[in-house]
Amino acid sequence: MDSEFEVPRELSGLQKKRAQYHPELPPCLQVSASPSSSILGITVRVEFGDSTTCADPSSANVIGRAFPHTFGQPLAHFLRATAKVPDAQIITEHPPMRVGVLFCGRQSPGGHNVVWGLYKAIKIRNSDSVLLGFVGGTEGLFTQKTLEITDEVLATYKNQGGYDLLGRTVDQIRTTEQVNAAMIACNDLRLDGLVIIGGVTSNSDAAQLAETFAEAKCPTKVVGVPVTLNGDLKNQFVETNVGFDTVCRVNSQLISNVCMDAQSAEKYYYFIRLMGRKVSHVALECALQSHPNMLILGEEVALSKLTLFDITKQICDAVQARAEKEKYHGVVLIPEGLIESIPELYALLQEIHGLHNQGILTDKISSRLSPWASALFEFLPPFIRKQLLLHPESDDSAQLSQIETEKLLAQLVEKEMNRRMEECIYKGKTFDVICHVFGYQARGSLPSKFDCDYAYVLGHICYHILAAGLNGYMATATNLKHPVNKWRCGAAPLTAMMTVKRYSRGPGAVPVGKPAIHHATVDLKGKAYELLSQKAPSFLMDDLYRNPGPLQFEGPGADAKTYTLAVEDQDYMGRMKKLQEYLDKVKSMVKPGCSQEVVKAALSSMASVTEVLSVMTTPSFGGHQPL
Amino acid sequence: MDSEFEVPRELSGLQKKRAQYHPELPPCLQVSASPSSSILGITVRVEFGDSTTCADPSSANVIGRAFPHTFGQPLAHFLRATAKVPDAQIITEHPPMRVGVLFCGRQSPGGHNVVWGLYKAIKIRNSDSVLLGFVGGTEGLFTQKTLEITDEVLATYKNQGGYDLLGRTVDQIRTTEQVNAAMIACNDLRLDGLVIIGGVTSNSDAAQLAETFAEAKCPTKVVGVPVTLNGDLKNQFVETNVGFDTVCRVNSQLISNVCMDAQSAEKYYYFIRLMGRKVSHVALECALQSHPNMLILGEEVALSKLTLFDITKQICDAVQARAEKEKYHGVVLIPEGLIESIPELYALLQEIHGLHNQGILTDKISSRLSPWASALFEFLPPFIRKQLLLHPESDDSAQLSQIETEKLLAQLVEKEMNRRMEECIYKGKTFDVICHVFGYQARGSLPSKFDCDYAYVLGHICYHILAAGLNGYMATATNLKHPVNKWRCGAAPLTAMMTVKRYSRGPGAVPVGKPAIHHATVDLKGKAYELLSQKAPSFLMDDLYRNPGPLQFEGPGADAKTYTLAVEDQDYMGRMKKLQEYLDKVKSMVKPGCSQEVVKAALSSMASVTEVLSVMTTPSFGGHQPL
Repeated sequence: MDSEFEVPRELSGLQKKRAQYHPELPPCLQVSASPSSSILGITVRVEFGDSTTCADPSSANVIGRAFPHTFGQPLAHFLRATAKVPDAQIITEHPPMRVGVLFCGRQSPGGHNVVWGLYKAIKIRNSDSVLLGFVGGTEGLFTQKTLEITDEVLATYKNQGGYDLLGRTVDQIRTTEQVNAAMIACNDLRLDGLVIIGGVTSNSDAAQLAETFAEAKCPTKVVGVPVTLNGDLKNQFVETNVGFDTVCRVNSQLISNVCMDAQSAEKYYYFIRLMGRKVSHVALECALQSHPNMLILGEEVALSKLTLFDITKQICDAVQARAEKEKYHGVVLIPEGLIESIPELYALLQEIHGLHNQGILTDKISSRLSPWASALFEFLPPFIRKQLLLHPESDDSAQLSQIETEKLLAQLVEKEMNRRMEECIYKGKTFDVICHVFGYQARGSLPSKFDCDYAYVLGHICYHILAAGLNGYMATATNLKHPVNKWRCGAAPLTAMMTVKRYSRGPGAVPVGKPAIHHATVDLKGKAYELLSQKAPSFLMDDLYRNPGPLQFEGPGADAKTYTLAVEDQDYMGRMKKLQEYLDKVKSMVKPGCSQEVVKAALSSMASVTEVLSVMTTPSFGGHQPL
Repeated sequence: MDSEFEVPRELSGLQKKRAQYHPELPPCLQVSASPSSSILGITVRVEFGDSTTCADPSSANVIGRAFPHTFGQPLAHFLRATAKVPDAQIITEHPPMRVGVLFCGRQSPGGHNVVWGLYKAIKIRNSDSVLLGFVGGTEGLFTQKTLEITDEVLATYKNQGGYDLLGRTVDQIRTTEQVNAAMIACNDLRLDGLVIIGGVTSNSDAAQLAETFAEAKCPTKVVGVPVTLNGDLKNQFVETNVGFDTVCRVNSQLISNVCMDAQSAEKYYYFIRLMGRKVSHVALECALQSHPNMLILGEEVALSKLTLFDITKQICDAVQARAEKEKYHGVVLIPEGLIESIPELYALLQEIHGLHNQGILTDKISSRLSPWASALFEFLPPFIRKQLLLHPESDDSAQLSQIETEKLLAQLVEKEMNRRMEECIYKGKTFDVICHVFGYQARGSLPSKFDCDYAYVLGHICYHILAAGLNGYMATATNLKHPVNKWRCGAAPLTAMMTVKRYSRGPGAVPVGKPAIHHATVDLKGKAYELLSQKAPSFLMDDLYRNPGPLQFEGPGADAKTYTLAVEDQDYMGRMKKLQEYLDKVKSMVKPGCSQEVVKAALSSMASVTEVLSVMTTPSFGGHQPL
């Protein structure tokens, strides 16, 4: 059943050296090698936290109904061998296990290390266990095309970029047909576990698959791993995604190089579109690393409902202000998702997608648009019209990678600057712009040390999840801004990350649609955004370009982490554990027999805590409400 | 007269660390720091070689007439303090010197280090010497806008990319007005030397300036430094250019990442256009580093006179052959100069440029084309028509960076594949292509260690040239494929690098036009090309993608050199010295008084040598004949 293995690969010197790098493990995942303690050494220790809900309380019912078997499962924390937790589950038996693993969704640097970490964790506990990789991703799953992972197979893929060890294809397990094919494959191959490596939609699919398997009493447990360069699979449990670090660093290098170029030649503006799907995490992080003059943040545009005209004006005003200081160069970052954040374009895209869904042929769509949408459509340059008419992607978003928003803005800004020039409003030199798109050239990169470590650790955690018999969980490592030996490892139910879309805001809004894990947008109240906002005016005018340089594996910069990770105040999992400790402590301090005063003090304090919390968790308080 | 200095720059950790890196010097440039030997320590030792000619003997007269003062000057070699050469010139006096330096032409990583090296070499010999940087390149020269280079000014620019320390502008010193302005500046500022950092055309300008200065008895000596990312300022004396190494390594990283992407997704072809001007050195080197599936080498196309149709067919056949092996992805490299190598497009561009020169307005040009050119023009897609109509650059070439040859080929290949599909000649999946342009994002990079060292060494050599009182020379370092302590340092007259264009080939062809340094094309008999040719079939079919990884400054790969440098059998300067040694040896062995037999043996051997050489140096032998 195994596919033939590829021709031997020629690795460069650096690739070979990287292949020899061995990521560290946090204490809770370390295996003691001494033979005297061999059983103790490979023990898996799980402590279960409280049962989970979801961030938006009003959605809990909807999600609970849709996922009766997998909603509300407890958090899991994996503990080091020396940890003294009385009610931890100690797993010392490791019968042979059969696990399948697949890549799902766009390749993200580090993916290979998840496979490697999982393989190591499985084999060290039972050499009879088998790890099967599905060749060609989901298609390999449906057609049961597998490659048994061995040391030889992995040899040239450790710490390497791409997904080419196994490849990937359709990237969804959603239709009944697909879900059934997956279940048949898991049954036929007698899999104890199925590990899905992917982003937001792949992990939504994983959650659905877990529920379906549980319902159908299929014994295969489904585990998700957060691997996506977009960095948008972020929530209470997940601090960052495998690949985000690398992609931001490679992009930042390129942006910095372009900034350097702009400043040396002093005659061009560069408009750079960055891959990153609907959200602007990559663009925000790159701006923090490289200090370009402007970043048009999709989330800001959406919040302020800026029109194409507003954005054009904003850029033109900046160009004009810079020209007054004799600066005729600059660098502007544009997230690829921006196009969907501009209200009138979003509305136009919705109409177009609606007509696609009605089966209208592409070349008939423009004649079927509403008068309003039609007017906008005709106003746009021909190249962008063609791109807007492309079929939407599987998650119903536009084909963002194909829509040249940067060129659209470049044309509009150029036109407006020429107008201002003719009308003598602008008196500087002619506005000259060069457009770039960065994405494909970053996502195939050798993964950074951080992504190598993070992915490898998550791979190990997948084994722990399967050993604990958990289904519908995501592997999580937290406290990531600290060194690996401080990382905390655990697992959270996929359903706890879900939200339900609603079409209006406010307390009365009714959730509609299927529960799913949604793209986390850039938090405009978050610290990363705050950091950028503070610096934006000087970035705009003072050219404080900063060059993080090419990704290093040794020496300075090799251990740098993303700003987003470093400044955000995260560690949700750690806090949940801490809270549990407080609750336990209160319980143990206020045991029957203690004084009346102690009980009264406890009651009064607890009443106040619960009061505050009940106010905060009512929907009208403005908790996390996805659009 | 100094311009105000810029706002302090924020350097990243890696930039700071790089700023602390101190390049090594070859023994001949090293300064002994011991006070007892202070005069000996800062001595400059020059050995002069034979007087120079040029590579194409039939052009020598033309060049000699155009450059009466600077043609035929001898080679210069700089020697280590311990070298025992009887007739070397020993320069121990270093009166205060005033030197100007400017960037001319497109920025190339490492340029800043030439300034640094020059500054160090000047100041260590006389702290009263002054180095003035011209702000804004040639424009700064003409308007005498200078910045005095000091340790403080240099602090944040050592080993950093870009040209932003001084900037650059018009990039030519060619018209009588420009040359006069330059001479006035040199006189006004009482410059002993003027160092021009640039590529092919800038060094041609430098040669002309040197000649004009000599004619006008202007005391300023002009020195050129070979700094261009294109790598096309190559000749007997110059092995490679500052910036080429970095740019090829950054581009190769990106190409490799795209290859990785192609292989992971297995659904796209990527057409990547590479910056590098008329010639394909960058593309060739990148192909050797990263092993893409195809490289359309401009020089091959020109030699075989391949039409647009031929190239399209060649790519389509490759796509079809790969599809038969179930491969629907691939990476194709396209040098930006390719468009000028395709015969019919070259002819069309010549017509367009001719009409531009006649002062015809751009929007009238298409109606003035010959019927033949007009037919081709109308056949091309609108976007490329617009780009072909752009005004030519100062060296009369098309605006290569603006012409999207990769998109043109992508469209033509797509159309042809669709035709083959309709006619059932091709039965695979739909051909899907994504286009990229790499250039701006590479040339602003932090320079590689090699470029840091090479540029710094060349900066030192500039001082040696000025100390020796030479005018119209280029700083040269050779034997570069070996470690820095084996490098040989010298200087060659700029006129010895010149050739004269001719419009036909063969022995009777008459040189026309002004002598100039011309772009060196990729040598189709050279070892680098041979290496690629051998591997091309397996690159095409077997996906032997290789990822050199991001540019490293420590650890493996940090000291790697370009393939082009490593495989080429160069060291011309070393061989010229060796020859001189042989000639001297013969002379000393055949002194008057030696036996008749010895004289006869010498005569017979020398007769045979001169016979062979005279055959080889007649024009019909097919020596170096530029197009």
